[in-house]
Amino acid sequence: MTSLDDLPLRDDLRGLTPYGAPQAPLPVALNVNENTHPVPDDVAAQILDDVAAALREVNRYPDREFTRLREGFAAYLGHGLRPEQIWAGNGSNEVLQHVLQAFAGPGRTAFGFAPTYSMYPLLSQGTGARWIAGTRDDDFRITAEDAAAQVAVADPDVVFLCAPNNPTGTPLGLDVIEAVYEVARGVVIVDEAYQEFAPKAAPSALTLLEGRPRLAVSRTMSKAFAFAGARVGYLAADPVFIDALRLVRLPYHLSALTQAAATAALRNSATMLRMVDEIVVQRDRITAGLAELGYLPHESWSNFVLFGGVDDPRATWQALYDRGVLIRDVGIPGHLRVSAGTEAETTAFLDAMASVGSAA
Amino acid sequence: MTSLDDLPLRDDLRGLTPYGAPQAPLPVALNVNENTHPVPDDVAAQILDDVAAALREVNRYPDREFTRLREGFAAYLGHGLRPEQIWAGNGSNEVLQHVLQAFAGPGRTAFGFAPTYSMYPLLSQGTGARWIAGTRDDDFRITAEDAAAQVAVADPDVVFLCAPNNPTGTPLGLDVIEAVYEVARGVVIVDEAYQEFAPKAAPSALTLLEGRPRLAVSRTMSKAFAFAGARVGYLAADPVFIDALRLVRLPYHLSALTQAAATAALRNSATMLRMVDEIVVQRDRITAGLAELGYLPHESWSNFVLFGGVDDPRATWQALYDRGVLIRDVGIPGHLRVSAGTEAETTAFLDAMASVGSAA
Repeated sequence: MTSLDDLPLRDDLRGLTPYGAPQAPLPVALNVNENTHPVPDDVAAQILDDVAAALREVNRYPDREFTRLREGFAAYLGHGLRPEQIWAGNGSNEVLQHVLQAFAGPGRTAFGFAPTYSMYPLLSQGTGARWIAGTRDDDFRITAEDAAAQVAVADPDVVFLCAPNNPTGTPLGLDVIEAVYEVARGVVIVDEAYQEFAPKAAPSALTLLEGRPRLAVSRTMSKAFAFAGARVGYLAADPVFIDALRLVRLPYHLSALTQAAATAALRNSATMLRMVDEIVVQRDRITAGLAELGYLPHESWSNFVLFGGVDDPRATWQALYDRGVLIRDVGIPGHLRVSAGTEAETTAFLDAMASVGSAA
Repeated sequence: MTSLDDLPLRDDLRGLTPYGAPQAPLPVALNVNENTHPVPDDVAAQILDDVAAALREVNRYPDREFTRLREGFAAYLGHGLRPEQIWAGNGSNEVLQHVLQAFAGPGRTAFGFAPTYSMYPLLSQGTGARWIAGTRDDDFRITAEDAAAQVAVADPDVVFLCAPNNPTGTPLGLDVIEAVYEVARGVVIVDEAYQEFAPKAAPSALTLLEGRPRLAVSRTMSKAFAFAGARVGYLAADPVFIDALRLVRLPYHLSALTQAAATAALRNSATMLRMVDEIVVQRDRITAGLAELGYLPHESWSNFVLFGGVDDPRATWQALYDRGVLIRDVGIPGHLRVSAGTEAETTAFLDAMASVGSAA
């Protein structure tokens, strides 16, 4: 029997296991920050019409420049963005991978303030860059002064700023982004995967793009657009920044079906985003409910809540699992993370937490 | 105005231009070896049904293991293959990229017999590996003895064997694969992107997989399955080889829509492959027609023909372009390459060639 040790695998991959949250078929799955609301039927019908049209020419390679999709993203994002400022990939992970391939890679470094999105170090190492972890304060926040000081010392080639931050939900002020950009030599990526769940008055980092060619703002359709299964991430930046990503992308990386489905969904953004308000209501219910039970939920501008005050996260996770509710142990001592689901799913989670008992 | 030079781009990317064949909207496009036959209507309808079902759950992340799709590929390929021997990606380029990330990358080397698929060196360099180009004889063939000798000297970490070879169409004997595997220390990838267009009696490298854990056979749905727009490549190898690819893939790299569409197409492989026989007829017409005009077409087991005897490839390419026929100058002196299209497209190409005049 052959084993992985018998193959000429790269030395830096030996002993690793594939990344991925456990996939378990539980009735209430609130572990990977999905949008638990399906795409509305009328939008699904429009998407299907456009996919049908794309299928008629699927024997041909897709538009390598995904022109209509970039137009759709520019229109959705607003802020005066033009299509030539848009990039997209099969999930924001691929978009971030392109950024790392262009600006980091072997012999270079990437930086983020831990705890943050767990794929950043994996993507960095996967493209040959060294990962440097910065720190946050006890409440997972970070000031402009501290952030700039840490980036100045680390002097990385790529800085990731997750805003709001995953897995903590923590907001990030624009002042932090401005201060980091000022001091950074490399490119600065603001990952706004969860931006649509922030307060409507909270400005996006998109407002900072003008005059900052080393700044990029990444987004995803996985969360607000309930499109995790379609794998569509995107990014806005200076047109020259986009040119750099063209050098490293695989030709025809976005399928004609993906382009058609995403373009149709974007045309229906008003309908798609109506679910966001409902999710925010449930997120705030989770925060209030957990506080009532004595736990310590952190302020969240996302579609999930990280909460402390958990004596034994492993035991609580298992107790919820046994009650049919799947949440996530993100490895922060004394904490667990739960995604905001539908009203019924949220109730199921809060009921399960209540039956597990109050915080110590 | 910002320029790319103002950004902290990797040094090894400076001065490069993005890869990609010119995309021109000509009536007869025979330049990128697409299948010019659309997917049959009844198959498209079935694909659409399955995509509709996938859309109902597109708010959730897709099956990371694309279980049903791997079952579909195993059944299609036959040769006793099991689903755990299958891998897939967004186009065979992504599959080959995974192989290079796992087994080549920084500090390692990849090798192929030039002229061969132009993405091999780009993919290798893109993942940090050094590309080593071997040679072929004057007719672009290669013997087992010569191949093994070249690989022994180069001692690469990854060997690419394109069978039949792109852009030349040249068949590759199984004896060459066996000899190269025997002498190679690294992994050996047989790229059978065009295998379905080979004579039906010609054995696939799939017959060599048993007992050769460092061997992998890659395929694509872009050509025989007329699915270039859907971006689906795949690979068969030892289950342990597949485990290695799991270490480098992005999580959820294959969308639920891609999985659904490809699985439905595979279920209809008999219908899909009926076009292959017609394309082979047109390919052989091209070969005969070009020979009649005095050109020197090379034997092709693929859906395209490389032909020599072209005095001025640039001028002939332009003359065809001016007649509405797009073919490809692949950079081999005195040669051009044309894809086999429908009967009408093939006629248009041959008529245009005749009007350009006979070979010198």
